[in-house]
Amino acid sequence: MQVTILGNNSALPAFGRHPTAQAVSVCGEIILIDCGEGTQSQMQRYGIKWRNIHNILISHLHGDHYYGLPGLINSMSLLGRTLPLHLFAPAALLQIINTLLLVADTVLSYELIFHPLPEGTATLCDNLNFKVSCFPVEHRIKCHGFLIETKNKGRRILPDKCREYEIPNAYYNALKQGEDYERKDGFIVKNELLTDEGPKVKKYAFCADTLFTKSYLHIIKGADTIYHECTYLEVDKEKAFSRFHSTAAQAAQIAVLAETKQLLLGHFSSKYKELEPFELEAAAIFQNVKTGLEGVTYDI
Amino acid sequence: MQVTILGNNSALPAFGRHPTAQAVSVCGEIILIDCGEGTQSQMQRYGIKWRNIHNILISHLHGDHYYGLPGLINSMSLLGRTLPLHLFAPAALLQIINTLLLVADTVLSYELIFHPLPEGTATLCDNLNFKVSCFPVEHRIKCHGFLIETKNKGRRILPDKCREYEIPNAYYNALKQGEDYERKDGFIVKNELLTDEGPKVKKYAFCADTLFTKSYLHIIKGADTIYHECTYLEVDKEKAFSRFHSTAAQAAQIAVLAETKQLLLGHFSSKYKELEPFELEAAAIFQNVKTGLEGVTYDI
Repeated sequence: MQVTILGNNSALPAFGRHPTAQAVSVCGEIILIDCGEGTQSQMQRYGIKWRNIHNILISHLHGDHYYGLPGLINSMSLLGRTLPLHLFAPAALLQIINTLLLVADTVLSYELIFHPLPEGTATLCDNLNFKVSCFPVEHRIKCHGFLIETKNKGRRILPDKCREYEIPNAYYNALKQGEDYERKDGFIVKNELLTDEGPKVKKYAFCADTLFTKSYLHIIKGADTIYHECTYLEVDKEKAFSRFHSTAAQAAQIAVLAETKQLLLGHFSSKYKELEPFELEAAAIFQNVKTGLEGVTYDI
Repeated sequence: MQVTILGNNSALPAFGRHPTAQAVSVCGEIILIDCGEGTQSQMQRYGIKWRNIHNILISHLHGDHYYGLPGLINSMSLLGRTLPLHLFAPAALLQIINTLLLVADTVLSYELIFHPLPEGTATLCDNLNFKVSCFPVEHRIKCHGFLIETKNKGRRILPDKCREYEIPNAYYNALKQGEDYERKDGFIVKNELLTDEGPKVKKYAFCADTLFTKSYLHIIKGADTIYHECTYLEVDKEKAFSRFHSTAAQAAQIAVLAETKQLLLGHFSSKYKELEPFELEAAAIFQNVKTGLEGVTYDI
């Protein structure tokens, strides 16, 4: 699992930075989280293919998190998309999108399947490869964070070894479950010879936009990577609180409390030209911190 | 009067080109025509100040002509705008904007004065410096062109000459109207000694998005510069017609028929990487044609 940052700025575009959008690459497809103005151009710039997007998650209805969505939806239609697209977003967005399509006399070339986000914590999507859930964070208007987890697919077959020990294909599923293989002559081939552990289950937690709170800590605990907004530096702590945002130091405190392996920072206020101070402030509290830079892909 | 092109592409962003937006500079202020996605970033890039914008005109409700408007309106508020902003647009846009503000729990810091565009031709704005009118063009949905005309402010005072001939300030308005000045000793100072013609009245016609039609020719006739969309080249004439768009050759024919001095091309389809063929095609019919390039300012 990887995440490519498409926009790392807060509401006002500044210094060439864009509003929030992230492309999470998981098991060969892209989950788009938030879609600020200009996201479709950022996708072009950084090679994110719309064909690979089947799910879009919108955290809340402040414009810097979804004003790029109508354009992206429309462009996919102009480009002839046929596969359905699942949109998980606050309920009010459905009426907005329908109105925009109506006044433009536009019928999309594909099915847009709208899933209103519930009030609280819930599973949004659960398939063979991954599970996506949402959880409430604390912002000025209703806002959700998201948790994306890959599935444990059992042990990974080592094809060369299986051929060497003449294991029939029909037995592969049993091997994935960790079983040994008993040959007709009674000889036991140990599972460890035929499989390895395979890719580890990964968890990515997206926490935006929120003030510092422990209310959802139990949900993101143990995530491999946590993205946490830090609109401000600690020197502007009061401003962060009054505007329902966080500081870099607070993001780092969440990382410590959640026992994550990596912290990714973003949603920087346009009042700051330089981003280094955010990473420095957070690193004093939590070591493995990265500034989410646009166009950069981070392993989760 | 000048126009800076902020976006010259049609619906799908491509090759670094943006959807329609133009900043018309007239008598010290900016009139923004259309506001495709990314317009506020383009304004930052090309030094167009939001403080100078008092009027925004939206031609129609296809997304590539206004999906950047909610972000711009919101940013002006975040930046503390207090002066009212006049928005001339299809009536349905008011409800859309109100909904977007409502779901974001946002109250703008300034008054947004909405003027629904009428069905036909009408004056939108008429002040000491300029007049703006709209006229229907022929597109798939209701769409307007716009005409911006500067006012004749009479003859221009030559301050040095007026001092030399000891003309009292109180007489300046009469000079602007072309009157001579009679001194107490009966000597007549001819007006031509004290004034010159001043800046000429200018007319800019914006014709987007439309198929080739003579229906509004009488309105744009004699405009100094005509902007005419040309989504396609003549080789794709059938496609242009079926999609209610024009070709570069058709834009040039309008320029000839309207007896304009200059033709500005734009709204290029994303199927074309190179823009030179548009200018070449039009120049074979109308000589003084320019490809509207993003970031470039054209005298009108």
